[in-house]
Amino acid sequence: MSDSSELTTFTGWAATTAGAPLERYSYDPGPLGNDEVEVAVEYCGVCHSDQSLIDDDWGISRYPFIPGHEVVGRIVRMGPQVRGLELGQRVGIGWYKGSCMHCTSCIEGSHNLCSTVQPTIIGSNGGFADRVRSHWAWALPIPAGLDPAMAGPLFCAGSTVFNPLVEFGIKPTDRVGVVGIGGLGHLALRFLNAWGCEVTAFTSSLSKQDEARRLGAHKVVASTDSDALNDIAGTLDFLLVTANANLDWTAMLATLRGKGRLHFVGVVPDAIPVHVFNLIPQQKTMSASPVGSPANTAMMLEFCARHQILPQVEMFPMSRINDAIDHLRSGKARYRVVLDASQ
Amino acid sequence: MSDSSELTTFTGWAATTAGAPLERYSYDPGPLGNDEVEVAVEYCGVCHSDQSLIDDDWGISRYPFIPGHEVVGRIVRMGPQVRGLELGQRVGIGWYKGSCMHCTSCIEGSHNLCSTVQPTIIGSNGGFADRVRSHWAWALPIPAGLDPAMAGPLFCAGSTVFNPLVEFGIKPTDRVGVVGIGGLGHLALRFLNAWGCEVTAFTSSLSKQDEARRLGAHKVVASTDSDALNDIAGTLDFLLVTANANLDWTAMLATLRGKGRLHFVGVVPDAIPVHVFNLIPQQKTMSASPVGSPANTAMMLEFCARHQILPQVEMFPMSRINDAIDHLRSGKARYRVVLDASQ
Repeated sequence: MSDSSELTTFTGWAATTAGAPLERYSYDPGPLGNDEVEVAVEYCGVCHSDQSLIDDDWGISRYPFIPGHEVVGRIVRMGPQVRGLELGQRVGIGWYKGSCMHCTSCIEGSHNLCSTVQPTIIGSNGGFADRVRSHWAWALPIPAGLDPAMAGPLFCAGSTVFNPLVEFGIKPTDRVGVVGIGGLGHLALRFLNAWGCEVTAFTSSLSKQDEARRLGAHKVVASTDSDALNDIAGTLDFLLVTANANLDWTAMLATLRGKGRLHFVGVVPDAIPVHVFNLIPQQKTMSASPVGSPANTAMMLEFCARHQILPQVEMFPMSRINDAIDHLRSGKARYRVVLDASQ
Repeated sequence: MSDSSELTTFTGWAATTAGAPLERYSYDPGPLGNDEVEVAVEYCGVCHSDQSLIDDDWGISRYPFIPGHEVVGRIVRMGPQVRGLELGQRVGIGWYKGSCMHCTSCIEGSHNLCSTVQPTIIGSNGGFADRVRSHWAWALPIPAGLDPAMAGPLFCAGSTVFNPLVEFGIKPTDRVGVVGIGGLGHLALRFLNAWGCEVTAFTSSLSKQDEARRLGAHKVVASTDSDALNDIAGTLDFLLVTANANLDWTAMLATLRGKGRLHFVGVVPDAIPVHVFNLIPQQKTMSASPVGSPANTAMMLEFCARHQILPQVEMFPMSRINDAIDHLRSGKARYRVVLDASQ
């Protein structure tokens, strides 16, 4: 277990300019907040959003900052108002690390929709570091029986794809498609298979076909093959888009049956042009959502422990973080890179 | 009550070329189907969709055809397989007049989503006539206590705006907006007020402000006033768009609170450009739907009878149908024109 002493500086790996390799960087975290836990990082997943912020893809990055928001570690310090957690407990922290706790969304349990919700790595420093802090409500205990080395990606990638299954009442009798078999999509396949659904994987590279089946897909469709899309027109109840790409959305909508939902969790670059003519006759819906609330994420962790669902990861020592990011950039990560902070 | 004798021709008012005045027209309806009822028309509403098909706005019109799909009349003949209806019974027929009755949608009760659902006036002749036919499942009895002269518009305009309240579980505690105060929108205001919601009317002409309040709105907002839209940002659970116009959809989405839904029942001319960035953070949804199923429409009729909800109509003799259509085209109809077939 990590040292619980108070550190005057936290040290990690920071992005200093758009797209540059990360560099060693130390900062003063200031006093611990009353509601905050401080976590000694053991593992941290590397997410596509880390890369987007490193590269300033969204035009909101402020340098230097330390990326990393799929943290697993142990609580080493707690503010006096922390509730429900213990020193030494192993927790995870994901895309968000705090919310106001009193607005309607927070009081309803949808802390992830709080208008002042705080992303872990926008305006503060994340988990590619020795320590990181969060509000107690956003630090969730890792259940017994889940390998902590592999659990990090559940807190962003996992929660993001699990959340809509709960929010939109996906039923075990539903036919569900997953577009994009990457960090998010591969977990979606595992979840949906355990959920009892008929699962169809949509992938641009049919080279992933066998892997998609191994991950839980019952069928695999090439997302760019209009004949293949046509063959399954009108069959899906729910189509979960995890890809960050512009696709033929009219063809994707056409795969849905009546009352079907096209749901986005990936940041598709361009606006999606939807004509109401494609929605009205079959009462179709389009929607999108962020990472899940603390309650839904805790529900996911329990589901993962019961079904032994974990991401498929490739481990890198944190000291080789730039190699890890290059591997992610190459598109060859299968399917999530996790950094080991002990190395 | 109308003559129940068999007619060899039905006579009505037909569109003969795009945009031209309707002309007297007779056609041979052929033998009555086993599952069909034949209705002697008493009243028929005039809907914006009639005008769109008369003008071939959607590029699918085939001339000559008789418009009219908000029919009220009495059953004068019934095929041998008709179920649950009686000769002489007063019924209404709306946008759809038949469906396959055996596909998954029909068996689930969502006959309106049947892939072979038959619109009353696309490929057949409608209710601006002495008689019209429909499948028995699509001819719904008018409850006692609802004025038949005014009930016609409930079968298209009414059912179209009532349906999403049922389908999406709108709650009396919800804050709901209605965009467009016309044939559909004015009924939506009445429904939502009786539903118990806080109702906000969005209108391009603030001249309708007082009327919107009289119809049930608690608040009125100018749909083109960006300051006014900004004032109510993040407040609505549900925003029902009944307008057939291109509006600032990003501003409209911004009026929704977390998990809010922007729902279309109007045929907006252009594709709606939605960026997932505007949906993801607050888990917002966009959807659209057609007229309701027979079950939801029957539920609406019962609700209308209980709350005495009827459209606000202007009556024209059917013989003055072209004056009625001109009145609709002028934008001055308040809020629905109904033709009286007895005159």
